[in-house]
Amino acid sequence: MTYCVGLYLREGLVLLSDTRTNAGVDNISVFSKMQSEEVPGERVLVMLSAGNLAITQAVWNRLQEGVQLDGSRHTLRTVPNMFRAAQLVGQAVRDVFAADGAALKAQDVRFDISLMLGGQIAGEPPRLFLVYAAGNFIEATTDTPFLQIGEHKYGKPILDRVVNFETPVADGMKLVLISMDSTLRSNLTVGMPIDLLVYRTDGFAVALRKRITEEDAYFRMIREGWSAALRQAYLELPRPDWVP
Amino acid sequence: MTYCVGLYLREGLVLLSDTRTNAGVDNISVFSKMQSEEVPGERVLVMLSAGNLAITQAVWNRLQEGVQLDGSRHTLRTVPNMFRAAQLVGQAVRDVFAADGAALKAQDVRFDISLMLGGQIAGEPPRLFLVYAAGNFIEATTDTPFLQIGEHKYGKPILDRVVNFETPVADGMKLVLISMDSTLRSNLTVGMPIDLLVYRTDGFAVALRKRITEEDAYFRMIREGWSAALRQAYLELPRPDWVP
Repeated sequence: MTYCVGLYLREGLVLLSDTRTNAGVDNISVFSKMQSEEVPGERVLVMLSAGNLAITQAVWNRLQEGVQLDGSRHTLRTVPNMFRAAQLVGQAVRDVFAADGAALKAQDVRFDISLMLGGQIAGEPPRLFLVYAAGNFIEATTDTPFLQIGEHKYGKPILDRVVNFETPVADGMKLVLISMDSTLRSNLTVGMPIDLLVYRTDGFAVALRKRITEEDAYFRMIREGWSAALRQAYLELPRPDWVP
Repeated sequence: MTYCVGLYLREGLVLLSDTRTNAGVDNISVFSKMQSEEVPGERVLVMLSAGNLAITQAVWNRLQEGVQLDGSRHTLRTVPNMFRAAQLVGQAVRDVFAADGAALKAQDVRFDISLMLGGQIAGEPPRLFLVYAAGNFIEATTDTPFLQIGEHKYGKPILDRVVNFETPVADGMKLVLISMDSTLRSNLTVGMPIDLLVYRTDGFAVALRKRITEEDAYFRMIREGWSAALRQAYLELPRPDWVP
């Protein structure tokens, strides 16, 4: 499995992915699930992926080569806007399905993929999309300013409670790390290290890309601090006066 | 879906279940998923259920009628110990599968059921089991003193972090309510009201059984207090000094 989370904030985008891939529990590896394209001053696009690694890598390879859209060949470096970029990713997914779907089905392998695409192309604000295996997609809005793919349940409660569009990027960085930590603790198929990317609105360059390992002092502080805070918070809530 | 959680603590058992059942999203009802048998001074047994309601009710009905085990007919009121009680529940599940499994399969309905059985029978300490659709089961131990069935992921991180066998029952009551609240917030198929049961070790009677509704003042305080505590806790964690 995988866990990727993206925040869509007024100040920018905060994206985090784990790196665990597994074929069974005795064959685990580290693969980055975060790919990006940058044309400084003009565009930044970041793709996060969950699902079958062969499928997600095939999608990214096709996006590098160029995919037919509206009668001409495009890459994420040439599409005119983010909506077209999401369509392009969806088309790449459909192209992989057309090429490999039947062979996968013959081996009883599900066409299991979900992708997140975030970024900004000059002329419009940043946008964040979730692309499904069918190639269709949804977009984060100010109502629900986060998207998740993969093993999303463990890390969702904290996001449901506190993220909003006005959350500062600096707090968003804390939140995605807390959300990832909850997932890492409860699910073995999500694993360290993790990749964090921050994009500042109208920056048109990646503001931060950082690989965070088990030894990272800040992430260790988050893990320990969050656990201690949860313990403290639950102890401080009053007991019911009907304890038997 | 459903969410049920049970804590296995030195002081006793704390069991909580929601009451939502749904056949599609436009047909939801309230059914208790908590059944119990009590022989004051001698035994208390509590069964929590998740999965197809027709199957879980069929299992409970068979347990009321009596199930063949080791050549004689038993109910939860007659089995000699908790291990036999778990076997009896498992046998009831297998009997339902034998009676209904083929007809369910013909309608493409999964034989979807999981059960929790907790309690104490005089002569041994309290025990807590999780019975699978195959009728086999596992038991909570001091290493991992909680079990969950149904929609378990949202409410697991807090349990993973703080529950241990020495947790007082009064704190365990808070914890299962927090765990349930995280699940209720993030998943529509788990719904209020909720049923809480507390059994005190060597009490041989149910210490507390309480239906908690949306209006319950204590549960509202837990919901609001926990949300506020999480917000506060994340705000108090320091920001990384590498914020871009």
